[in-house]
This record gives sequence, C-alpha cells and structure tokens, in this order.
Amino acid sequence: MDYNRVYNFSAGPAIMPTPVLEEIANEVLNYRGSGMSVMEMSHRSEVFQTIIDEAEADLRELMNIPDNYKILFIQGGATLQFAMVPMNLMKNGVADYIVTGAWSKKAYLEAKKYGKVNLLATSQDKNYTYIPDCSDLPVDPNADYVYICENETIHGSTFQKLPNTKGKILVADQSSMFLSKPCNVSDYGLIFAGVQKNVGPAGLAIVILREDLIREDLDEKVPTYMRYDIHAKSGSLYNTPNCWSIYVCGKVFKHLKKSGGLSAMQKRNEEKAAILYDFLDSSKMFRGTVEKEYRSLMNVTFVTGDEELDAKVVAAAKAAGFDNLKGHRSVGGLRASIYNAMPKEGVEALVAFLEKFENEHKA
Amino acid sequence: MDYNRVYNFSAGPAIMPTPVLEEIANEVLNYRGSGMSVMEMSHRSEVFQTIIDEAEADLRELMNIPDNYKILFIQGGATLQFAMVPMNLMKNGVADYIVTGAWSKKAYLEAKKYGKVNLLATSQDKNYTYIPDCSDLPVDPNADYVYICENETIHGSTFQKLPNTKGKILVADQSSMFLSKPCNVSDYGLIFAGVQKNVGPAGLAIVILREDLIREDLDEKVPTYMRYDIHAKSGSLYNTPNCWSIYVCGKVFKHLKKSGGLSAMQKRNEEKAAILYDFLDSSKMFRGTVEKEYRSLMNVTFVTGDEELDAKVVAAAKAAGFDNLKGHRSVGGLRASIYNAMPKEGVEALVAFLEKFENEHKA
Ligand SMILES: Cc1ncc(COP(=O)(O)O)c(C=O)c1O
Ligand SMILES: Cc1ncc(COP(=O)(O)O)c(C=O)c1O
Ligand SMILES: [Mg+2]
Ligand SMILES: [Mg+2]
Ligand SMILES: [Mg+2]
Ligand SMILES: [Mg+2]
Repeated sequence: MDYNRVYNFSAGPAIMPTPVLEEIANEVLNYRGSGMSVMEMSHRSEVFQTIIDEAEADLRELMNIPDNYKILFIQGGATLQFAMVPMNLMKNGVADYIVTGAWSKKAYLEAKKYGKVNLLATSQDKNYTYIPDCSDLPVDPNADYVYICENETIHGSTFQKLPNTKGKILVADQSSMFLSKPCNVSDYGLIFAGVQKNVGPAGLAIVILREDLIREDLDEKVPTYMRYDIHAKSGSLYNTPNCWSIYVCGKVFKHLKKSGGLSAMQKRNEEKAAILYDFLDSSKMFRGTVEKEYRSLMNVTFVTGDEELDAKVVAAAKAAGFDNLKGHRSVGGLRASIYNAMPKEGVEALVAFLEKFENEHKA
Repeated sequence: MDYNRVYNFSAGPAIMPTPVLEEIANEVLNYRGSGMSVMEMSHRSEVFQTIIDEAEADLRELMNIPDNYKILFIQGGATLQFAMVPMNLMKNGVADYIVTGAWSKKAYLEAKKYGKVNLLATSQDKNYTYIPDCSDLPVDPNADYVYICENETIHGSTFQKLPNTKGKILVADQSSMFLSKPCNVSDYGLIFAGVQKNVGPAGLAIVILREDLIREDLDEKVPTYMRYDIHAKSGSLYNTPNCWSIYVCGKVFKHLKKSGGLSAMQKRNEEKAAILYDFLDSSKMFRGTVEKEYRSLMNVTFVTGDEELDAKVVAAAKAAGFDNLKGHRSVGGLRASIYNAMPKEGVEALVAFLEKFENEHKA
C-alpha cells in the first residue's frame, strides 16, 4: 500500500479510504480557497453550511432515505443514543429489546432507566453466536418500539432478516454495518450509527429518524442536548457540532457514490467476506465462531481453540503488517473487521498470511 | 500569511496555529510510522493511549493542575456540560448562578431542570455590558456550587476577579478564555471548556474536576454517558471519544508549551487586545460595547452605532481578508475574536483596515 500504510482490521475507529485521506491532507491548511481549515470554520458560516448540506444530501441519495425521515448529526457516539432512544421514543414507557450481544445488552440496560423494558429474545444461551428466530415473538402490545443491534461488532453476528415487529416501530443500531449494503429505510422508525466504523472519525452518531416520531412532550428532565426535536429543528446546529467528522463523513459519502453506491459495496463486501470465511471453513487450525447463517459481513470472528495460539497469531500478524486482529477484550480470539474501506487485497493478503502461519505451525 | 490563509476572527470554531496544522497535514495518511491516520486508530490501541496520555500530561503541566483534579475529555460540547454540571454536582438540589450573558443564562435555564436554582447576580439590566460586583453576594447556605461563565463570548465581557463564593465550590465555563492566561485551578471545583475556541476542533469539552466532587450516588435516570464518575473511572475511554480532537488539542498544548506557556500567552493577548481597544477608544466611528474594566481579552465587541454601517464594515473587511467579524446574531454589531492563535500582525492589520475605513467614510 502507499504511504507505508498497514492493513488495519480494527473494529473501530477503523480503516478509511486512502483517496479520502489524500483529499483531506491537501485541505488541512486551506479548505478550497476559504483561507482556513475546516477545523477553524464557524459552524454558522456559509462554507460550513454547504459542507453539512451536501453531506446530508449525499447520504440521503446513497441510502435512498425518504423525505419524511430526518438525518441528525449528534455527538456522544452510539452510546449516547442508548439513552436518547428511550428518552425520546418511550411514550407508553414500554419497549421490547432483542439482545444478541454486548451492544444490544448495553442498550437494553440503559433503556431500563427510563421505563419497562422487555427482553423479547436473546441468544445469550450460546454466547451470542447466533440470531434468534424473530418471526413470531410476543411483542408487547404497549411497546413503543422493538430494538435490535443489527450487527454485533464484538461477536460477529448479523440479522439476515429483520424481526417481525407486529406493527411496532423498529429501532436499529447499525454502527458496524452502516452503508455496507442497501437498506430499506422505511422498514425502520429510527436507525443510528456511530460513524467510526464504516464511515469517518469518531465523535459523531448519525441518526435517521421518521419525522412523526419526533416528540416535544418529553419529561422536562431530559437534557436539552438529548432531545431529537431540538436537533431536528436546528438542522443539527443546536450547538457546535463535530464539524470535522461531518466534513470527513461527507467525503466518504461522495467516495461511495463514485464507487457505485451501496449495491456495489454489498457485492464487494460479500466477496471479501467469502474469501475469509471460505478459508476458515477449510482451515484445520482456525474456525469461525458464529453459526454460518448469521455471520457478519463486517466483523469476522474466529479462534484456533487455544488462547495462547490466538495471541501468537495476533502478534505475528501485527509484525507482518496486519494490525488490530485481536478479538474484543470481553471475548478473546481473533476478529478481522473488513469494512467498506478494506480492499479485497487486504483480505487476500490476510488469508495468505493465515495459511502460511497454519502450514508453519502444523501439529 | 502562508497558504493564502485569511485572518479569521471567528468566535468558534476559530483560528488555530499554522505550525500545528502543518504537522497535522503531514500525518493524515500515516501517523508517525503507525501505518494509519489518527482517524483510523482504535481508541484502545497503545499508539492512541500515548496520544491521550500526553495530551493530559501537557495540559496538566500548562495549567499546573493539582493531582487531586481529574481531566476529562467528553463529547457534546460545552452545552452538554450545562446539564452534566447540575446532574452531577447538585447534592442538596440547590445552586447559585451568576448570569452575565447569553451563555451563563443558557446554563442557568438548563440547571433549573434539576433543582432549585438561584439567580445570584446578573448584569442583564445593561445588556450584559459589565460584570456585577460579586464580592459579597447572598450565597445560599445550601448551594452545592456557584456558577459563572468566566468570559462571555457573545457580549465580550470577562471576570477580572473571581466571585466570593463564601466557601462554596466555584464552577466556571471557561470555553472562550481557556488557556488564554494562567489559571489557579485550586480556586475552582470544576472548570469546563468547549475546545473549539482557544484550542482545537469542535466536538469535545475538557472538564477539570476536583476528585472529591465526583459522586456515584446519582439519580438513576442520569444517562450513563453523563456521569462524571464513569468518564473518570475509564480515563475518558468509557466509549469511543473524539480521538481526532484530542490528538489536535494535544498538539496545541505542546505548541503552547514551546511558546512560553500561559504567562507568555497572557502577555501576548494583553498586547493584542490593547492594540484593538486603544484604537476603538480613539476612533470616532467605532466604540467598544463593554465597560472598560470588564473587557474581554479574547472577544472584542464593538459597534459604529449604525447597523447598516456595521454590516458595511463586515462586508468590506471580509473582502479584504478579515473573516467572521460579524457580531453574534443575537446582539449584532462587530466582534473580533483574538484567541491565542491570532497573531499580533492580524490585529494590527485589522486596526489598519478599520482606520482606513473610518478615514474613507468620514461624515
Ligand atoms: C454496534 C455498536 N454499538 C455501539 C457502539 C458504541 O459506540 P460509541 O463508542 O461510539 O459510543 C459500538 C462500538 O463501539 C458498536 O460496535
Ligand atoms: C462561553 C461559551 N459556553 C458555551 C458555549 C457552547 O459551546 P458548544 O457549542 O460547544 O456546546 C459557547 C460557544 O459556542 C461559549 O462561547
Ligand atoms: Mg469498540
Ligand atoms: Mg476451520
Ligand atoms: Mg457559537
Ligand atoms: Mg471610539
């Protein structure tokens, strides 16, 4: 790779497209004749307004977001959304959560602060290595929404089919799969994603929210910053936003458009994932940890079955220029996050490395 | 200036030191041999841990922050602190606010959501053009803290002397004066600042907090992200922080250290402000809007007395390469924000421009 860049398999913050970084490097001291860096620009200036407007328009086009959905750029990461979702959407004070891993579990626990939260289904019994059947769950008639984490970053599992919510609103944390494939936004009431996995620099969540769900009659103890109505009314400029991240995400949106949009991404991501999963399935040393049907296209989790050996692989990989392959500290093993920006060559090179390692370490 | 950069007088996001931007531009594609951009780095990696540790250590040294104070890096800007402060510090449910402008007013209104909030003093009677005498105020015996905005960005006023809090904890919003001069941190229980004025890119607040004020016995409805104890315990890595802003702020801290630290900044800032205020005092066309004693070193507010003429000056200035001189939309007039990074030459050039404008537009 150029610039002596490594293949970075981090789960987030994560690899970004090199051409986007090149553009940024050229604009750091003077953004397109404005005489200043985007880091120095008033968020109330025309030049920044154009940046945020274009980012929104490009994202709308990429995901084909209907007009009755708002796009919000909010600080606090995906974690702040764990609280904002129940604070803003719990009208009846009831919600149904499907817990398929660490992130939906965390969201579930946070929601409990604000109402009655049902554990509608979970795959905890098998360490979150699968997605439960969600075709006919006992949805609470009073539930304000049904919540999922559509791709569990840590465990490497993903929903292949959205749950049957029986008419209730679906809320999805798409952090680690956002923009990885086409998405039918109308299936959701609210989608959110921390951008630092598949898009840009950390410190920003994107929230896509059906307009009629935006409420003004909230508990008065909800902090002003945590109200969707406030962000919606002010075009994400209630206070100074993470201008830099919005700018960089905007560039990534344009890059994705030029690269064929989300269908092209899906095709590429399926190819990339197949290369790695096929290797794991044929390997005698390595095996994937998630049931085949629910394997993530983005976060490929695998083990040797021997923790010491796992650590040895991670260290050898790092020395060979494959960084951040260690599984999340809570589950161990290995994880290769192969987001949009990871080139096919990166995955091929990783497989070649793992194959070589296996051959050299045969029992 | 190099790179065709303008003199940017924005109140925030605001001008940054050119040498810092040059360093950043060089590191965008590969940070010091790590093989990746800081935007792509896992916040759990060693290389990022070094960045955040150094940023904290350099800030501690610059401000001479005692060991019993924590430094936290939190998303949500200064605005989220308007809610976090009362949510975390109101033990008795009472606080005293001194309202000297739009920002302390906003903080005051937000705090009212969480307890009994007294308006201890205000300068609203004269459009916030002065700071009230705070030497002997009727501090509530039950007050958990006394709150000030130490420099009101919009109005251009500043505290020359901290209020007598009669033994209560002082909380200060230092957003628009942070690091502009030495600060005796022990005088405060909590200092916070959005970094986008005197430090780095927006999307980050720095909170400096006396350890014994950190509580765990909070109302259970306080969102996890809004708990100081959570951020303190996790070294600001409870979730993915605004890594980029922390990285850039760290560079600015090093730059300030190299430039002589906060005493040198104060001297420079006093010189710069004097150039502009002396001109305003001698000018027949322009005058400062704040009583002399309370004039800000950072945000210099002034008017011609004629709104149309004000607008004309702003437009002519922009055309001449002096950007963002328009006063805040809520007060009008002109405002030149001359933060640490504004060179003396920028202020001299602005004065020369204003003088010329005055001569060319004599009645
Ligand atoms: C699926 C998912 N949800 C939420 C989070 C938390 O995001 P953040 O660190 O931005 O709060 C993460 C990752 O860190 C994630 O992978
Ligand atoms: C003194 C002061 N406090 C608070 C704020 C709000 O900061 P933020 O936009 O980061 O929420 C600002 C500026 O915007 C400010 O100048
Ligand atoms: Mg993570
Ligand atoms: Mg196998
Ligand atoms: Mg502002
Ligand atoms: Mg005058």
